[in-house]
Amino acid sequence: MDDLTVRVRAFAEERDWQQFHTPKNLAMALAGEVGELLAEFQWLTPEQAGAVMDDAVAGARVRAEIGDVMIYLTRLADVLGIDLTEVALTKLEEAAIRYPVEHVKGSAIKR
Amino acid sequence: MDDLTVRVRAFAEERDWQQFHTPKNLAMALAGEVGELLAEFQWLTPEQAGAVMDDAVAGARVRAEIGDVMIYLTRLADVLGIDLTEVALTKLEEAAIRYPVEHVKGSAIKR
Amino acid sequence: MDDLTVRVRAFAEERDWQQFHTPKNLAMALAGEVGELLAEFQWLTPEQAGAVMDDAVAGARVRAEIGDVMIYLTRLADVLGIDLTEVALTKLEEAAIRYPVEHVKGSAIKR
Amino acid sequence: MDDLTVRVRAFAEERDWQQFHTPKNLAMALAGEVGELLAEFQWLTPEQAGAVMDDAVAGARVRAEIGDVMIYLTRLADVLGIDLTEVALTKLEEAAIRYPVEHVKGSAIKR
Repeated sequence: MDDLTVRVRAFAEERDWQQFHTPKNLAMALAGEVGELLAEFQWLTPEQAGAVMDDAVAGARVRAEIGDVMIYLTRLADVLGIDLTEVALTKLEEAAIRYPVEHVKGSAIKR
Repeated sequence: MDDLTVRVRAFAEERDWQQFHTPKNLAMALAGEVGELLAEFQWLTPEQAGAVMDDAVAGARVRAEIGDVMIYLTRLADVLGIDLTEVALTKLEEAAIRYPVEHVKGSAIKR
Repeated sequence: MDDLTVRVRAFAEERDWQQFHTPKNLAMALAGEVGELLAEFQWLTPEQAGAVMDDAVAGARVRAEIGDVMIYLTRLADVLGIDLTEVALTKLEEAAIRYPVEHVKGSAIKR
Repeated sequence: MDDLTVRVRAFAEERDWQQFHTPKNLAMALAGEVGELLAEFQWLTPEQAGAVMDDAVAGARVRAEIGDVMIYLTRLADVLGIDLTEVALTKLEEAAIRYPVEHVKGSAIKR
């Protein structure tokens, strides 16, 4: 993870793109890439979507879109001084308390 | 990263939530969380957005939203059998070829 | 439609919110509301999603989210000087040429 | 509006695309198009974004993206049996009560 953060940062700095990499702009770019990821799945049935990685062409597109999402998420977290793994683990611990196994097992996820 | 993947997977399996964690559903959930992240920045000026982590309350919300985004991205990648760091590094290498430093330095990012 | 545009504009102007209603900010707000709409559907099966309006509580939430999306889309179009119906009809005519009935009937939508 | 709804519905029915036009799929498609719209603005300064329609090429892209968003929003509302203008006006009336002019005038929009 740290290595990825360092490499994405170097990629931006070598191109003098820090000026574009504001939190607002990066959040928009992240959302744009997630939109492209959604487009890969939108017309598939649940069964087709579940087997998408078995299709070489579609699978490569999904891998590429997930890569783009991860790049922008990594860059946004770096610009904000946030450790991605740490905040994810913190939220997961909170979710474990909010959704106790004995209460929610097998039932639809509540919002 | 691997540890996070394992923990998110365990969280889902303990709750029998694999049935909900299809690629389509997880992509939608990821987009929903990115929408909440956008909402944190949407009315801020670029300057306010750049200083958002200095505000304890707003900063905590941003950390929480980024944590949620990372959880769903990790889970989606796991379900699809994708290594997040690997696909991000692959895309970064492709981007380095597509946007050579000498051609794009300091200029607006082309789509 | 025109009446809605006028009312949304009046709502913003009465509150001196034009300063916040820049194209970037409104596009982010639109995406945020679409994220909330996605959240209404993300854990539903296709069958459950197809019957969502039969549930009074969930149906009311979906109506509210669609209302929010339409408000921000209307406001964004107004700020940009775009007529929503006109641009939608123009795109629909282009799509009719791009996807001729005899070629695409019943087959998966191509991107 | 009604005319647009009728035309979008005819476009889908002529192509036997009702099978793809489930609420989940249409919500994903809507989000995907909003993602493309965000991409038009993401690297622009607020000033550049405010003048985007003065640029013939960028302005045409923005018009096309807004058209796509409106098409999918119209189709989703139609499939759900929702009147877009009506739900937007209802939400606007609720927002007028929630954000009284005398309390919020000129101040940042609260979430």
